[in-house]
Amino acid sequence: MFVSFEGPEGAGKSTQIRLLAARLEREGIVHLLTREPGGTDIGGKLRELVLDTRSHMSAMTEFLIYSASRAQLVGEVMRPALERGEVLVCDRYVDSSYAYQGHGRGLDMAQLRAVSEAATGGLTPDLTILLDIDPGLGLGRAARVGEPDRIEQAGLEFHARVREGFLSLAAVEPSRFVTLNGAEAQEPLSEAVWQAVSARWNASRSRDQAGNAHLV
Amino acid sequence: MFVSFEGPEGAGKSTQIRLLAARLEREGIVHLLTREPGGTDIGGKLRELVLDTRSHMSAMTEFLIYSASRAQLVGEVMRPALERGEVLVCDRYVDSSYAYQGHGRGLDMAQLRAVSEAATGGLTPDLTILLDIDPGLGLGRAARVGEPDRIEQAGLEFHARVREGFLSLAAVEPSRFVTLNGAEAQEPLSEAVWQAVSARWNASRSRDQAGNAHLV
Repeated sequence: MFVSFEGPEGAGKSTQIRLLAARLEREGIVHLLTREPGGTDIGGKLRELVLDTRSHMSAMTEFLIYSASRAQLVGEVMRPALERGEVLVCDRYVDSSYAYQGHGRGLDMAQLRAVSEAATGGLTPDLTILLDIDPGLGLGRAARVGEPDRIEQAGLEFHARVREGFLSLAAVEPSRFVTLNGAEAQEPLSEAVWQAVSARWNASRSRDQAGNAHLV
Repeated sequence: MFVSFEGPEGAGKSTQIRLLAARLEREGIVHLLTREPGGTDIGGKLRELVLDTRSHMSAMTEFLIYSASRAQLVGEVMRPALERGEVLVCDRYVDSSYAYQGHGRGLDMAQLRAVSEAATGGLTPDLTILLDIDPGLGLGRAARVGEPDRIEQAGLEFHARVREGFLSLAAVEPSRFVTLNGAEAQEPLSEAVWQAVSARWNASRSRDQAGNAHLV
């Protein structure tokens, strides 16, 4: 099962992923955490380039660097984990490109989809947890963690478009997305994340068992 | 006018571009030379990554890094030079991706074309000089210049597919491509390059003048 976490800066993705990993651990469910951009050697170098505040690049260059990092992550890490039957949890995936480079930077959505199809071979999350947050609040939280990177520096209007982008992506695919309020307290939020993940996990296991029973 | 030079390793592109630049200089034609991957700050960093023999990446990652470098070069350098009316000479362009990552690495050509359209906004050379050479001979020449990079190390069979790829691209677009024998001596070869470039240049100038006359 492939679960992606999405949302604007400071929505609490890292915290919620850590809490989810602890819960999966307690439940004895083998899982793998990864993140974008990065997650591989070459992806780590691309991450440095794309987040470096001294880098100057067009929106399309930015998107293609994210896509290169994603192609490597899918081939080297994600597909092998899914083939081993693990629960794969990814901090950001293609929806971030649609929200940041599409809605935020104004790139053509059909081109983003064509490039993403090439980069991922069509690999799509089974479940996407969208942690929604007001961009002012989210950027304020992110600023307490460290110096803002090149994307965090892009301004409040940009981040407002990104948030609206995420919400409209979720509206188009209600069966894949679960949207939660990132401003909520950690504990009840992590409980809601767990409800969403375990419901999907149980559904996929009963499908598998039904499939096996059918084979017997 | 946009002229690209293409060909396998060691076909003599750099030498012929230098000789063409000297000729353009003597003729008083304003021109700009650039190269792929690279040609911009961010492109230079992507070039280091993609040619580094210690980098491990899939064919799709490799292609997307080239495409990111190309998107930046088109926006930052190539389109501005063409808008200033200069002759733009580029050492490698999209045909290299079709030959190396398509024919050489076996990636899907329709996907390469869709991504390249996004990266370049459809910018296509007016003239492509293909310097053809036997891959054994070309790699031998390239080896005398310095240590082989990650692409040069890919083996003779790979480079034979790349050469066949270039020849089939030229066969499909005979009006854009001029194919010359890279094994020929420098002087007659540079004269043949100049004939191809000046013929296209004169044709484009008479078109412009006809257009202007029409406007008057």
